Amino acid sequence: MSRLSSKIGKHPGSLIYVGRNAPRYTSMDLTEYNSQELNEKIISEMNEIRNVDSCVSWLNVCGLGNSEVIQKIGDTFKIHPLTLEDVLNTQQRPMFEEFEEYIFVSLKMIQYDNHKVYAEHISIILGDNYLISFQETKGDVFEFIRQRLRENKGKIRHEKADYLLYRLLDAVVEHYFLVIERLSDDIEGLETKVLKEPTIETMNQIRKTKKQLTYLKRSIWPLREVINNIMKSESKLIDPKRGTYFRDIHTHCVQVADTVETLRETLSGFMDMYMSVINTKMNEIMKTLTIFAAIFIPLTFFAGVYGMNFSHFPELDWKYAYPAFWGGCLFLVVGMYIFFKKQKWL
Amino acid sequence: MSRLSSKIGKHPGSLIYVGRNAPRYTSMDLTEYNSQELNEKIISEMNEIRNVDSCVSWLNVCGLGNSEVIQKIGDTFKIHPLTLEDVLNTQQRPMFEEFEEYIFVSLKMIQYDNHKVYAEHISIILGDNYLISFQETKGDVFEFIRQRLRENKGKIRHEKADYLLYRLLDAVVEHYFLVIERLSDDIEGLETKVLKEPTIETMNQIRKTKKQLTYLKRSIWPLREVINNIMKSESKLIDPKRGTYFRDIHTHCVQVADTVETLRETLSGFMDMYMSVINTKMNEIMKTLTIFAAIFIPLTFFAGVYGMNFSHFPELDWKYAYPAFWGGCLFLVVGMYIFFKKQKWL
Amino acid sequence: MSRLSSKIGKHPGSLIYVGRNAPRYTSMDLTEYNSQELNEKIISEMNEIRNVDSCVSWLNVCGLGNSEVIQKIGDTFKIHPLTLEDVLNTQQRPMFEEFEEYIFVSLKMIQYDNHKVYAEHISIILGDNYLISFQETKGDVFEFIRQRLRENKGKIRHEKADYLLYRLLDAVVEHYFLVIERLSDDIEGLETKVLKEPTIETMNQIRKTKKQLTYLKRSIWPLREVINNIMKSESKLIDPKRGTYFRDIHTHCVQVADTVETLRETLSGFMDMYMSVINTKMNEIMKTLTIFAAIFIPLTFFAGVYGMNFSHFPELDWKYAYPAFWGGCLFLVVGMYIFFKKQKWL
Amino acid sequence: MSRLSSKIGKHPGSLIYVGRNAPRYTSMDLTEYNSQELNEKIISEMNEIRNVDSCVSWLNVCGLGNSEVIQKIGDTFKIHPLTLEDVLNTQQRPMFEEFEEYIFVSLKMIQYDNHKVYAEHISIILGDNYLISFQETKGDVFEFIRQRLRENKGKIRHEKADYLLYRLLDAVVEHYFLVIERLSDDIEGLETKVLKEPTIETMNQIRKTKKQLTYLKRSIWPLREVINNIMKSESKLIDPKRGTYFRDIHTHCVQVADTVETLRETLSGFMDMYMSVINTKMNEIMKTLTIFAAIFIPLTFFAGVYGMNFSHFPELDWKYAYPAFWGGCLFLVVGMYIFFKKQKWL
Amino acid sequence: MSRLSSKIGKHPGSLIYVGRNAPRYTSMDLTEYNSQELNEKIISEMNEIRNVDSCVSWLNVCGLGNSEVIQKIGDTFKIHPLTLEDVLNTQQRPMFEEFEEYIFVSLKMIQYDNHKVYAEHISIILGDNYLISFQETKGDVFEFIRQRLRENKGKIRHEKADYLLYRLLDAVVEHYFLVIERLSDDIEGLETKVLKEPTIETMNQIRKTKKQLTYLKRSIWPLREVINNIMKSESKLIDPKRGTYFRDIHTHCVQVADTVETLRETLSGFMDMYMSVINTKMNEIMKTLTIFAAIFIPLTFFAGVYGMNFSHFPELDWKYAYPAFWGGCLFLVVGMYIFFKKQKWL
Repeated sequence: MSRLSSKIGKHPGSLIYVGRNAPRYTSMDLTEYNSQELNEKIISEMNEIRNVDSCVSWLNVCGLGNSEVIQKIGDTFKIHPLTLEDVLNTQQRPMFEEFEEYIFVSLKMIQYDNHKVYAEHISIILGDNYLISFQETKGDVFEFIRQRLRENKGKIRHEKADYLLYRLLDAVVEHYFLVIERLSDDIEGLETKVLKEPTIETMNQIRKTKKQLTYLKRSIWPLREVINNIMKSESKLIDPKRGTYFRDIHTHCVQVADTVETLRETLSGFMDMYMSVINTKMNEIMKTLTIFAAIFIPLTFFAGVYGMNFSHFPELDWKYAYPAFWGGCLFLVVGMYIFFKKQKWL
Repeated sequence: MSRLSSKIGKHPGSLIYVGRNAPRYTSMDLTEYNSQELNEKIISEMNEIRNVDSCVSWLNVCGLGNSEVIQKIGDTFKIHPLTLEDVLNTQQRPMFEEFEEYIFVSLKMIQYDNHKVYAEHISIILGDNYLISFQETKGDVFEFIRQRLRENKGKIRHEKADYLLYRLLDAVVEHYFLVIERLSDDIEGLETKVLKEPTIETMNQIRKTKKQLTYLKRSIWPLREVINNIMKSESKLIDPKRGTYFRDIHTHCVQVADTVETLRETLSGFMDMYMSVINTKMNEIMKTLTIFAAIFIPLTFFAGVYGMNFSHFPELDWKYAYPAFWGGCLFLVVGMYIFFKKQKWL
Repeated sequence: MSRLSSKIGKHPGSLIYVGRNAPRYTSMDLTEYNSQELNEKIISEMNEIRNVDSCVSWLNVCGLGNSEVIQKIGDTFKIHPLTLEDVLNTQQRPMFEEFEEYIFVSLKMIQYDNHKVYAEHISIILGDNYLISFQETKGDVFEFIRQRLRENKGKIRHEKADYLLYRLLDAVVEHYFLVIERLSDDIEGLETKVLKEPTIETMNQIRKTKKQLTYLKRSIWPLREVINNIMKSESKLIDPKRGTYFRDIHTHCVQVADTVETLRETLSGFMDMYMSVINTKMNEIMKTLTIFAAIFIPLTFFAGVYGMNFSHFPELDWKYAYPAFWGGCLFLVVGMYIFFKKQKWL
Repeated sequence: MSRLSSKIGKHPGSLIYVGRNAPRYTSMDLTEYNSQELNEKIISEMNEIRNVDSCVSWLNVCGLGNSEVIQKIGDTFKIHPLTLEDVLNTQQRPMFEEFEEYIFVSLKMIQYDNHKVYAEHISIILGDNYLISFQETKGDVFEFIRQRLRENKGKIRHEKADYLLYRLLDAVVEHYFLVIERLSDDIEGLETKVLKEPTIETMNQIRKTKKQLTYLKRSIWPLREVINNIMKSESKLIDPKRGTYFRDIHTHCVQVADTVETLRETLSGFMDMYMSVINTKMNEIMKTLTIFAAIFIPLTFFAGVYGMNFSHFPELDWKYAYPAFWGGCLFLVVGMYIFFKKQKWL
Repeated sequence: MSRLSSKIGKHPGSLIYVGRNAPRYTSMDLTEYNSQELNEKIISEMNEIRNVDSCVSWLNVCGLGNSEVIQKIGDTFKIHPLTLEDVLNTQQRPMFEEFEEYIFVSLKMIQYDNHKVYAEHISIILGDNYLISFQETKGDVFEFIRQRLRENKGKIRHEKADYLLYRLLDAVVEHYFLVIERLSDDIEGLETKVLKEPTIETMNQIRKTKKQLTYLKRSIWPLREVINNIMKSESKLIDPKRGTYFRDIHTHCVQVADTVETLRETLSGFMDMYMSVINTKMNEIMKTLTIFAAIFIPLTFFAGVYGMNFSHFPELDWKYAYPAFWGGCLFLVVGMYIFFKKQKWL
């Protein structure tokens, strides 16, 4: 959120990138394809886009640092200033908005690295025959789709831009499963720790993992509504027969959200577990202390008694006083043992 | 979830089985019946299915390991690739989808084994005059229905495929009650343990049983919506007069979900119970320690006093000093006893 | 739930009674009335029912153990097999279902006995000019209505069967208030116990009473929806002018549900209370121990010092060493007293 | 709730007052007004009500103890028996019901007295040109409105009975703010107590105040819906232009409910606070004990060692043994001090 | 809330300011602008407002202390008395109301100062060609908009009053992000404290910060609905093409509410963290005490034994008794060390 405040006081639609310290560059690569041909090039000027009716033009923009380039794209494709703002505002929740000329979808690409979860803001603008995708950094999750386009596998080359939209969304959502598997592994590791060696560090890790899941949930939860809105959209840009496909993504979203919820519940269970392990351990410690104290404190008292210096102290001169003392001690210890056995402390 | 990530990067509709380490085979048995006749056979080729109008064809597929066979079934019955994907994706939540030619229902068969709950993914495709059911392993829950078909009991042989769908769903849902009874028994056993001998192991069992119930809930909860959707469906494949039957399953689902919720609440109560038992025990331990310490520590001090070696120590030479010492001790012990009695510690 | 599993594998509509170990008999008493006349008789055959148009026939069935009788009733009044199943399935949630010829209502009669709450399954079938009520055991809650019929008090004899339905539902719901009052008394008793003498037994009673309330809630909650559905029903069997009456029952249901919720909240408060009482007591115990230890352990040390046998030990020979020792002890005790006073432990 | 059970078994609409031990009388005062004139009188017979078309008749009934009087009012104004029952059932939730001839509103007047909250049941019947209000006891909250009527201030004398309804509801809702301020003061007082001197009594007060808020919430929550229903009502008895006024009351209700919710949350925070204060104090106590024990127990041991009576005990005869002993003690104490300093216990 | 009760008993629409001890003055500054010209002046009389059709008149009222001035504004612009009451009732939740001649919006301006959050009540009345904004104190959040008007930047001078409404709302909502960043910083600081040095003060700060967030939530939550109502409003005062702009504010509101919720969750996590840190520390303390006690109490006993004064005490005269005693002590200490090592206490 750190850079969001820097935007305050600017006029609406002012293009300021508010992301994490990502590269400040912006590169564009263009893929134009139909069932016959495929052209890929890295472009730097807008006029390099042919935008031929017979082709689907996919413009992939990496890095949101150069707001001039973003502005130019906006001008070329007649994008509403507030949409461009939403592209750059990487703090934005996933959203769907329908305009006359295009539809706008934003969502979160999730990356897992070293027990932490990072969200990358992805925006997609789907127009008539073109699709523009914006990424914060050059990720590899879309690379696979590009590969399929090149190899002309499946029906992707034979379909319009709305099918590409489906494939991009599908790629992002399927990536969630990977992240969740990683987090599941982390959580499994925590389970052992909680039961075996619960330290404050363990507790802290539970809390941190829970935070990651909250973060994940906030990225995924609104996506369900976004997909739902795409399905219900009556925009002519989306073929009604895509319904089954988007319903499929929606089901996956629900499945991911479900799993996240289950993992969060599991972690909450760990918290309770931690507290009860700590408390049970405390009980053990206190029992040990009490048993030691209850046995030796009376014995010490009796030893002290016979260390007293009274002149008139008949027992001291008894012949079997000393062995009798040890006998008494033994008697006391056995009595205590039975008492604690009855209390189920031993 | 372990195999789900292996699917990432495949094109949509790619048939990869993501279940637990179930057998990698796929067998098919076909039952064709009407009120007059009944044929049962194990088939391996699609063309063995006659698909006569006058008969209901029930194809039961066991094992999802052989995706080629699944693909062939898909081709024969013109199943949408995403439906086939849903058949194989055993992580899928229960769902209902209506296509032009068929309706697709998936749900979870629950098995209880050794305090654990396993879910098996069941998919059912209901078409005009045929029904295909997919199971992960050869279960025995449908065997009873096959028996009724053979014996021509009830009205099952006189009805169309939608009645068979109802009977299959009903069989699965009724099986839930068995699993819940087993879990109820487990939970009753835990209750005694928590009250009598609460250990970390008990706590861990509570948590694990709760996990099983969460798992169960996730399988059953969405099923209510599925049944609801079947009821509201206006597909010509389902006779409107089936309403009462599906409403009956729905009521059972709600009843199961209710019971699961009550059991979860009971388990949460056990957690609180555990903590309070542990804390109350701690109180007992501390009281014991404090009573011992409060009685013997002062006594030990007094014994120590009369063990001092001062030259000028008048009491040491008193004739009744030693009995007086014991009298003082007795006085102290009685005083402490009254004090602790008043504190309600004894 | 114990007998429910025994039903599994039977065909739908199979009549097996799944209730608690209630009597296995089934008795029927018939009341036929209109504003002029009233006939009461215990019947055993269906043909004893005249079913004259000018009379309301109320058939009250006690005990669900004899499924043959139930089946006969079903045949006579043309009841759907699944409805009969719902009559016998005493685990069923309260429900309302509308058929062409009759409407079916099931609900729970609550009995309180020795701090426990029992639910009895009541089913009511309202047809044109007749009403059949099914009870698990011969209860006395409907007796009062029978009395009013005999005495021809109020307008009950002048109205049709739907008014009788209203009176039966009203009788059951009003009985809830009695049960809640009993539970309220139990809870008030628990409050004192938690504050005065919190033991594990108290905790266990809190948990058990909470379970009773959960049970009660599960019986009452769905009833609100049932009454709501009766109000919204457009069945010709229910006179629209009954609206005010059923709205009255609905309001009572909401009031009961509200009270149950408040009592549950109160019990949750007791749990917190219990824990804090236990913890506060622990604090008291620890303070006592610490004060004893902190005063006597240093004193014991000093007594030990002057009990040492060093040859060169100047203090031992001082004349006022012994009184000085006691002076030092007094000084220490006073110091500790001031210290603990400042810590607010005394 | 104590008297509610006494109603069970009576026919519906039977008039039995179920309130707290309020006076068993019923008094009526009638105010007839229009913009020109105003008549106030205490009446005892129904025929004293002129019910002239040109006047608004406000009949205020205090005390619900005399059910005959209530019945007479019911007969005169043709009130439905169930409405009269709702007037007397002071346990009733706030409700709104629309009849052909009148609309019925019931709500709760809240009184705060000595840290406790009492709800008084207020019922209002608004007919064509008349309004009947029922109170359990003679309160002073409506007195102010009577004063305004007498002084002919504002527009109240120029408006019809529905404006009077608005003013009565407004008076009750505004009184809620007073009660909430008092409870806020109580809660502020509790905050200091929890932090400074947390005792079981404090905990108990928190719980009791929470109970008061639950009670308040139960009175206020359904009122929002009641007001909402008045707004949506299409009864000809309420002028549509009153909308803004009732919306104003609705906003106040939401504001009160909001504040109650915040106060409840604050109290829950106090519970957590209490537990952590108690636990932190326990830590302090244990530290003190441990420090004392860890310093003096070893010292006592060493003093004990040199008090042994072995014949061959070289140290005893050393010249500087005694000062060396004290040196050793000092060394130990300093060592312990450093150890506990490092543990941050001192 | 303190002054709200002072309003009770006044007639509805009575203008009494119920805010915090803010200045009791009221100043007005008027900005009249269109694309050609801009006039700014501080006014004190209503007739200074020209209200020319070709201009947008923005009247900004600072300070709500002078109710006469507010009343005059109300009279001039024909504002409903209840609206004026809502302007002055600074305890009011954010709300939106549509009148025939104007629309009324109220919301909360949030200020952060020294770890505390203050809400300022902002009311806006949008009429045909004019906008009146009311502030409790002279804030600087609208100054930026005034600046843009002066510099004629963006399209604000070319648009009507509804665009000014959008800009004002946008300014307030964007300011929320600043406040949340400050609170985030506070919360980050608390995290370290909880882990490193958890004191009751830390706990209290957590609770207080949580209270701030609850306060914030109560201000922001209803705003979402307000903006939603503006979007859905069919008032001719708001140009339908503003939809995208208000949707943008709505998205920001949701984002703020989301973040507040996450922060609240984080703080709840801190509470659990605090308790577990305290409990783990307690465990450490108890271990230390137990180890000391378990080692030295038996040793002290043995030292006491050999300090006894029995006449017949063979060991005392053994030559190597004293070294043997030390040997025994060493043996005991090593044994204990191994025992505690095995218990994982060391």
